[in-house]
Amino acid sequence: MSEASAQRRGRSGGGAARRAERTAVSIETARYIERNIPNFEVLGEEALAIIEENAETVLQEIGVSFVNNPRALERWKDAGADVIGERVRIPRGLARKLCKTAPARFTQHARNPAKNVEIGGKSLVLAPVYGPPFVHDVETGRRYATIDDFRSFVKLGHMSHWLHHSGGTVCEPTDVAVNKRHLDMLHAHMTLTDKPFMGSVTEPSRAADSVEMCKILFGNDFVDQNTVMTSLININSPLTFDDVMMGALEVYAEANQACIISPFIVGGAMAPVSVAGTLTQVLAEVLAGVAYSQLIRPGAPVIMGCFVTSIDMNSGAPTFGTPEAAHITYGAGQLARRLGLPYRSSGSFNGSKLPDAQAGYESANSLNVGLLSGVNFMLHACGWLEGGLVSSFEKFVIDADQLGALHQMAKGVEIDEEHQAMDAIREVGPGGHYLGCAHTQRHFKTAFWRSEVLDYKPYESWSEAGAHDTAQNAAEIVRRKLASYVPPAMDPGTLEALNDYVARKKAGVADAFT
Amino acid sequence: MSEASAQRRGRSGGGAARRAERTAVSIETARYIERNIPNFEVLGEEALAIIEENAETVLQEIGVSFVNNPRALERWKDAGADVIGERVRIPRGLARKLCKTAPARFTQHARNPAKNVEIGGKSLVLAPVYGPPFVHDVETGRRYATIDDFRSFVKLGHMSHWLHHSGGTVCEPTDVAVNKRHLDMLHAHMTLTDKPFMGSVTEPSRAADSVEMCKILFGNDFVDQNTVMTSLININSPLTFDDVMMGALEVYAEANQACIISPFIVGGAMAPVSVAGTLTQVLAEVLAGVAYSQLIRPGAPVIMGCFVTSIDMNSGAPTFGTPEAAHITYGAGQLARRLGLPYRSSGSFNGSKLPDAQAGYESANSLNVGLLSGVNFMLHACGWLEGGLVSSFEKFVIDADQLGALHQMAKGVEIDEEHQAMDAIREVGPGGHYLGCAHTQRHFKTAFWRSEVLDYKPYESWSEAGAHDTAQNAAEIVRRKLASYVPPAMDPGTLEALNDYVARKKAGVADAFT
Repeated sequence: MSEASAQRRGRSGGGAARRAERTAVSIETARYIERNIPNFEVLGEEALAIIEENAETVLQEIGVSFVNNPRALERWKDAGADVIGERVRIPRGLARKLCKTAPARFTQHARNPAKNVEIGGKSLVLAPVYGPPFVHDVETGRRYATIDDFRSFVKLGHMSHWLHHSGGTVCEPTDVAVNKRHLDMLHAHMTLTDKPFMGSVTEPSRAADSVEMCKILFGNDFVDQNTVMTSLININSPLTFDDVMMGALEVYAEANQACIISPFIVGGAMAPVSVAGTLTQVLAEVLAGVAYSQLIRPGAPVIMGCFVTSIDMNSGAPTFGTPEAAHITYGAGQLARRLGLPYRSSGSFNGSKLPDAQAGYESANSLNVGLLSGVNFMLHACGWLEGGLVSSFEKFVIDADQLGALHQMAKGVEIDEEHQAMDAIREVGPGGHYLGCAHTQRHFKTAFWRSEVLDYKPYESWSEAGAHDTAQNAAEIVRRKLASYVPPAMDPGTLEALNDYVARKKAGVADAFT
Repeated sequence: MSEASAQRRGRSGGGAARRAERTAVSIETARYIERNIPNFEVLGEEALAIIEENAETVLQEIGVSFVNNPRALERWKDAGADVIGERVRIPRGLARKLCKTAPARFTQHARNPAKNVEIGGKSLVLAPVYGPPFVHDVETGRRYATIDDFRSFVKLGHMSHWLHHSGGTVCEPTDVAVNKRHLDMLHAHMTLTDKPFMGSVTEPSRAADSVEMCKILFGNDFVDQNTVMTSLININSPLTFDDVMMGALEVYAEANQACIISPFIVGGAMAPVSVAGTLTQVLAEVLAGVAYSQLIRPGAPVIMGCFVTSIDMNSGAPTFGTPEAAHITYGAGQLARRLGLPYRSSGSFNGSKLPDAQAGYESANSLNVGLLSGVNFMLHACGWLEGGLVSSFEKFVIDADQLGALHQMAKGVEIDEEHQAMDAIREVGPGGHYLGCAHTQRHFKTAFWRSEVLDYKPYESWSEAGAHDTAQNAAEIVRRKLASYVPPAMDPGTLEALNDYVARKKAGVADAFT
């Protein structure tokens, strides 16, 4: 029994909780990926050195803005930066030096310790789509998301074998007041699944609520000593750190909770149209953001983020799964490893309005780049549609299924004597077939990854079964999954305390919808 | 003017041809890809050495079968192999030694010299789907392919900017007799496009017809001295070389025409269920096949092929775009480079019945692996559907569009001062945007790859335009392309000679449909 689990048992005290845990249906989740394949690298040593040098020049000569945040400016001044107005110019080397206290890897704890994730090194942790105001299903189309939709996505995530993490704002519950929805979202992640999750970042007070609710779920001491949330702090690219996001970062860093510090870049709009220029800006922004987190609390866990898309210069629309985004994602991975930080990028990105062929090509492009670029934390790994405006139910299960292929791909090639299979080649010989041979019999159950969503039927049986496309098949799987969902066991005392916290916080203030 | 072009002008003689060439609409085709990115490699030195050692053991101890081919057995005996019955056991090292005369790269000439392709080294040449008996379009569904369909696919290939090669059997024209359809297929490739193409392999006599027709198109001397066809010779895996395929190989090698020597493997059926075992067998088969080509004519151009899919062990269906196929494709690329041979693998592989999300994910997986594994010749790069049973019109244009992304991806990252974009970062500064800055103005037209098929419209305009999915949009593009097709200019004398050859050969024999 792990420390976390022991502590929680201590808190709950009663035999009822233990009985509930024993009788609950167990949803098996794959362990986070540990890569046994190399990373793909597009930049040579010279290019990396130029980009790093240029990023330092950006920090020293152009600087970054910390907006509406006098306390941040004070901190930077104290650390040795040149602060004029809200502009912070960081002497060459200072930001990189400050980043050194950030850990190269850390554990994010889940309430079920078997679902803890390691973030950093060769790991890859997969989390679902984050942020869309709309949801889409193939029967009823596109509509504003509700808290019921939110809970459905958390349930689907809980039931996914390949998803390690429950994520954060899997969709925006627009039917709940803006100043209260974080409470319902956290409550859903804490009660409907036992996977790790993300905290709220839309106000520092909501980040504080997230920490408080975690203390109820995990216990006070446990949260002080361990990372139980990874939250998404976007940088207002170019080179701007706003007070809301920084306020949330300050709360989390002080509480030793992890943040993804992530430039949000539509190439050509928020960064130069060139890959090298974008990487320079991304690195400068991450250096400044991570350094700031270490000014709050040295050793606070952080992830280098890099959200990039290209732009259709005809229409101004962001475009996804494109080669330029791939170059940047590969390059940023190299920069993150040189900086010694965990890396977040990529996802099931696409610009399609439907879970159709476009969604498939673009998402697959992006998912593959994510695996090969050495991403450690992949947000948006499933369910993303229409440039992030929409969480799609069908695409959630199609993508989540493809994540299984990433697991298998990451295993690499086994070369021991059994996998050399010389006995099989000898047994079968020229002109034979391997279906019945001893080696095949020993391995056929696990030799090949198998999709649970894609159609492998012959044409005739597929046609007789209704000639469904992938989205229609996925819709049926969504229905089946949601109908058979069983919540993970939970200590009734903890549940009651969470319910009380949410009710009390909601009762204290009027609804706000902006 | 190239040698080929000069010779052909010499043949045609008349000014009419030159005038026709001048007035024809030019369809611009991208130059074959020259990679400026590394290859992705999954095998270490030790694993490669084990596989190579095991392949030699397979050749020496188990051997390969050359079926119904006494002349081949003689050749092998003369070369030093141990021949018992049809089984050829090749002493350790002999096959690899024989392979050394095969060129590491070669030029395949097109009748338009601007469309010649280099095969080998860092090049990647893209050719369309090969072999399906059915075609599919989203309006009328799936049906047997006809010669009209065949011509339509050749026209679409001709009009594709990103496709370098017209391919071979883009679909089987099942309405033409089996013993005559190769004539119509070659005629289409020779007259409806000026891109390079493949020869017939279904009978040695049809390979001979292919060479004869090329002599009409290119001139006798030119064909003797240059490679003008690359044809697909499948190995009957495991370890079997049948007389039909070897007969065609013999014709082509003698004529100095290129062959892809390609194991055809559904993993678990025609090869062991393990990656290392499959790679061992693939290498043994390619070593034997390439060595045999060099026994026919030392220096004959060949490509190491590797067609691999995994199998769904529940249903026995072949599966595509899977991680095991990716491992094998990456590994076989490493083996090909160590052998010093051009490499063929990958394609727009998928098992879907429709150009839907499944087709998109699986095809994108496979296309990306093809680029990163160092493939030099990618057959099936567009149009493949339903495990290769179907050529899809819509998927042809969707895939062909994605091939543009591979071109851009292969360019790698430019790091010169202009692409470092420090002037842009200085000009824009914190909180600005890059859309109007000088650097963006200089580069926006070429900075980002842009799809011509995928939908970049906002939701509202997409919805008003009919809310079409990718396949419906592609269907419209297919209609537009075929309606605006213009054949490339052709010397009337050559056309007449080709027409005569086809008519004469068809008149000489009765139709056969098996």
